[in-house]
Amino acid sequence: MRSYLDSIESPVDVRRLPLDALSDLCGEIRAALIRSVPVTGGHLSPNLGFVEATVAIHYVFDTPHDKLVFDVSHQCYTHKMLTGRKHAYTNPEYYNEFTGFTNPEESEYDLFRAGHTSQAVSLALGLAKARDVLGQKHNVIAVLGDGALSGGEAFEGLDNAAVIGSNLIVVFNDNEMSIAPNSGGVYENLCALRASNGEAEDNFFRTLGFDYRYVEQGNDVQALVEAFREVRGIDHPVVVHVHTRKGKGLAWAEEHPEETHMVAPQAKAAVSVGETYQQITRDYLSAKLETESRLVIVNAGAPSGVGLTPEFRARCGSHFVDTGITEQHAVAFSAGLARGGAKPVFMVMASFLQRAFDQLVQEMGLNKSPATVLVFGAGFYDIDATHAGTLDIVMTSNIPGITCLAPATKSEYLSMLDWSIDQDERPVVIRVPERVIVGEDGFDRNRPGAWHVVQRGTRVAFLSTGSTITLARQTMQLLEERDGIQATIVEALNYSSFDERVLDGLLYDHDVVVTLEAGILCGGFGEKVARYFGKTPMRVMCYGGKKEFLDLVPTEEFFLIYHFTPEEIVADLEAACLR
Amino acid sequence: MRSYLDSIESPVDVRRLPLDALSDLCGEIRAALIRSVPVTGGHLSPNLGFVEATVAIHYVFDTPHDKLVFDVSHQCYTHKMLTGRKHAYTNPEYYNEFTGFTNPEESEYDLFRAGHTSQAVSLALGLAKARDVLGQKHNVIAVLGDGALSGGEAFEGLDNAAVIGSNLIVVFNDNEMSIAPNSGGVYENLCALRASNGEAEDNFFRTLGFDYRYVEQGNDVQALVEAFREVRGIDHPVVVHVHTRKGKGLAWAEEHPEETHMVAPQAKAAVSVGETYQQITRDYLSAKLETESRLVIVNAGAPSGVGLTPEFRARCGSHFVDTGITEQHAVAFSAGLARGGAKPVFMVMASFLQRAFDQLVQEMGLNKSPATVLVFGAGFYDIDATHAGTLDIVMTSNIPGITCLAPATKSEYLSMLDWSIDQDERPVVIRVPERVIVGEDGFDRNRPGAWHVVQRGTRVAFLSTGSTITLARQTMQLLEERDGIQATIVEALNYSSFDERVLDGLLYDHDVVVTLEAGILCGGFGEKVARYFGKTPMRVMCYGGKKEFLDLVPTEEFFLIYHFTPEEIVADLEAACLR
Repeated sequence: MRSYLDSIESPVDVRRLPLDALSDLCGEIRAALIRSVPVTGGHLSPNLGFVEATVAIHYVFDTPHDKLVFDVSHQCYTHKMLTGRKHAYTNPEYYNEFTGFTNPEESEYDLFRAGHTSQAVSLALGLAKARDVLGQKHNVIAVLGDGALSGGEAFEGLDNAAVIGSNLIVVFNDNEMSIAPNSGGVYENLCALRASNGEAEDNFFRTLGFDYRYVEQGNDVQALVEAFREVRGIDHPVVVHVHTRKGKGLAWAEEHPEETHMVAPQAKAAVSVGETYQQITRDYLSAKLETESRLVIVNAGAPSGVGLTPEFRARCGSHFVDTGITEQHAVAFSAGLARGGAKPVFMVMASFLQRAFDQLVQEMGLNKSPATVLVFGAGFYDIDATHAGTLDIVMTSNIPGITCLAPATKSEYLSMLDWSIDQDERPVVIRVPERVIVGEDGFDRNRPGAWHVVQRGTRVAFLSTGSTITLARQTMQLLEERDGIQATIVEALNYSSFDERVLDGLLYDHDVVVTLEAGILCGGFGEKVARYFGKTPMRVMCYGGKKEFLDLVPTEEFFLIYHFTPEEIVADLEAACLR
Repeated sequence: MRSYLDSIESPVDVRRLPLDALSDLCGEIRAALIRSVPVTGGHLSPNLGFVEATVAIHYVFDTPHDKLVFDVSHQCYTHKMLTGRKHAYTNPEYYNEFTGFTNPEESEYDLFRAGHTSQAVSLALGLAKARDVLGQKHNVIAVLGDGALSGGEAFEGLDNAAVIGSNLIVVFNDNEMSIAPNSGGVYENLCALRASNGEAEDNFFRTLGFDYRYVEQGNDVQALVEAFREVRGIDHPVVVHVHTRKGKGLAWAEEHPEETHMVAPQAKAAVSVGETYQQITRDYLSAKLETESRLVIVNAGAPSGVGLTPEFRARCGSHFVDTGITEQHAVAFSAGLARGGAKPVFMVMASFLQRAFDQLVQEMGLNKSPATVLVFGAGFYDIDATHAGTLDIVMTSNIPGITCLAPATKSEYLSMLDWSIDQDERPVVIRVPERVIVGEDGFDRNRPGAWHVVQRGTRVAFLSTGSTITLARQTMQLLEERDGIQATIVEALNYSSFDERVLDGLLYDHDVVVTLEAGILCGGFGEKVARYFGKTPMRVMCYGGKKEFLDLVPTEEFFLIYHFTPEEIVADLEAACLR
């Protein structure tokens, strides 16, 4: 029998269905998601909870004439299935054809690329204002997840909406969960609204000037259609608060909504990755807590990427704070903790730290706050462009007053982390390497600006940051084999300042310095070295990433396109600088 | 007769006064502010409104044992007067002894340096959590201005407070004004709270889990003392909503709270500055609005620095949006406007744009949003470190997908602005120069990446960004006089990419490239040039700022300490590179 889903090529086909067929369509979509997502990997439980709401939105609203904006957009799989891309969820051959986020290059139904949270209302409000200025008429719908509500940008957008004042429909997807359990005072208010069927005395959305509707049965497509029909064409901002079930329809996901928030692809999940810095960090912090009662571990609503498991969080007790999805606050909060005499360690993904650039400048650098920021997920690896961790060196190392450290080995990482927690003078950013390398500890606690000279040679010097040390060693060997040059290798353990003793020492018997960094070159480490030697005859060759956005490029390919191989570097050296 | 103020050396002396003397003390403080601030320049009307609340806080709480954190901290003058620094407000000889913001280097009563908004609750919450972890007992008080409430970071902090759950007293200073009139839906709620004496049905602060008190007479010191006594020692987060009058006690300031928000020093106010880019921009936009109905001018709650006068805003009507103090939202909102077919021009101070780094990356760069961002206040000039505009080149030019332009002349600025609004392809940041230079238009609308070769010489090339062109010309002349070298001068009009044609053309007959930029060198423009030439024999000398925070350094001194003079540069050239 032909299914409903078979007949759907676009939302127009959804709108042709009788209302009472939608429930079956939702069932088919859910079944496809349950089959495909565990194979491909992706955001499983958020999408399972938002099937009905997505179908109802496309049923009621005239997309793409009406404009639909997803927050984070990791809950857009049903939307993709309804907008010409269902084969990526129904046919294993095409499972990996599209990214897991909205993307205007894929479809006219996708208005923005989004991957960080809390921006949907702002983007949608921009669309609404443009509509008004251009004299157009259509609905603008923003889908806002409850986790995204803790982010200040969502508040800024909601607060500004009442001022603009015209049609804006915010579909607020309340599944009682962020990535991890929600954290924030406003969630008590949501709880009260749910308990009172939307009638609680204090209503967060109303305080911001929004009209408000509540839908208790947020996985009942008919109830949703009814609610959306009521607000279609409305002439002012309204929130439709939709109570959904994260992981809906899959018992395993309903019971473990955090673990199934994002699942690894089947192929990868089976592979043991060996020791990770997430585990190393947990072990270290657990031990440190035994002797350092001032330690406070801070995370901004995204604990999984940095290895803060539910068990570890529970073990830390009051020494762990989840601030919600609030990087700005988390950095300022850490500065406050430091000023108050505590020992904050803020653990964050490189990409998300971008939200807190100003707080790094003002609350950390300017205030000399002795806090530790552990940056995970920095470097080149297979990830969506929205989540790339290649701008962190730019962002942290150019701010006055912040000490930025890049360990190469596990023992260096542990030394740096311990030193950073113990010291009381300055903010420290540690760029957590991607790969665990066991090796000697070149970090000098008494000279945190010092670089580690691994090997002293002549003519060519490799200045390596973090785990590019492996590439430095391999290239050094190849250079010796091919050109008979015994090169120098230096771990630039501190990438926010120069070890002038090392650099000046290279001047008299080296011709070329090769810098290596796993981040974009523009504004990064290598350029600083190039400036340092700019007045001198020393040649400088910088290896790192181009200033570009790349999607899901396998790590090995990154190395090829950025010439991160011993063969390429030696060839470049021979061509350009070795006489 | 000896005044009360004479007897105050620290808050301990305030606490010794009888309650009924406080009103007179407030009168004396206000009189001192009215005498001193118009002379020194500074935040006049915000401080006049917050005299009583500050006195009451220090009277009731045991500062510095109890911890007091000011948001923005421009309303801290009374606090400074009570904490050992009154002579800076009473004796003209010492008027300029202290900065206009809290500063731990000045006093143990100042816990943080603050200058941007909306961070007080986060900082205070950090102090509160540190207190709890360390087993200490004291009150933590955050002073939050109503303008700061629109900033997402304030929401993030407030929202997290209920989770921490212990003593935190937020004194919310509601003077019904931001810098400009408040903008945001939440202000309607504040209005309802004021109208109902704090009893309105929906209460923003309660929705975030805060306890709540309202003080209608926020300039009545006895009412404030009573309110603060009630919450002293409280075991959970509470907001004390204090209704004050901005500019209180000075008719001129009460009537013109926006104009007197920040007043220029008497000495400066009298000096005519001639034509400004603020005026030039207003004139251009006024004319453009005649033919471009899609234009929307966006500002994030700080219109004065960028020249958006009340008259101009009124003239723009619905083509102007004040988003509140919300840089994150403002950038995303502009991206939404652009996607919707409007022509957004976001006007912002360089220092405040730091709040939106991630949105520049994601919503602008990644989404290729054709929006224009005009960055004012960038460069070296006499300003507090909290407001320095020296990190904008780092922040904007290293992001993929953003075109960054630095005009040297007025005509280039107007060409760039017009081109940027007309094009539909990409986000454009224009670094508005500090000084208006009348000169030729080297910008090529068909090649926005092209640099302008002002003069082609040999041996030495000056690559100038923005208004450093004057320095380039002067240095070129001196070099000709002293060394007989006819140098090349290039306006690097686009500082986010290289004009390789120009750079490669220098290789065969130039020895040295000198880069000039009014921003910090680390992560900036010159370093990119140094990298570009790193493999070649070309020497590169970069002139710009050090990576450091500087306070109130006069512009001319900046030029001296950073070697921004023709004499220094020629001397450096002779020493290092000219054979």
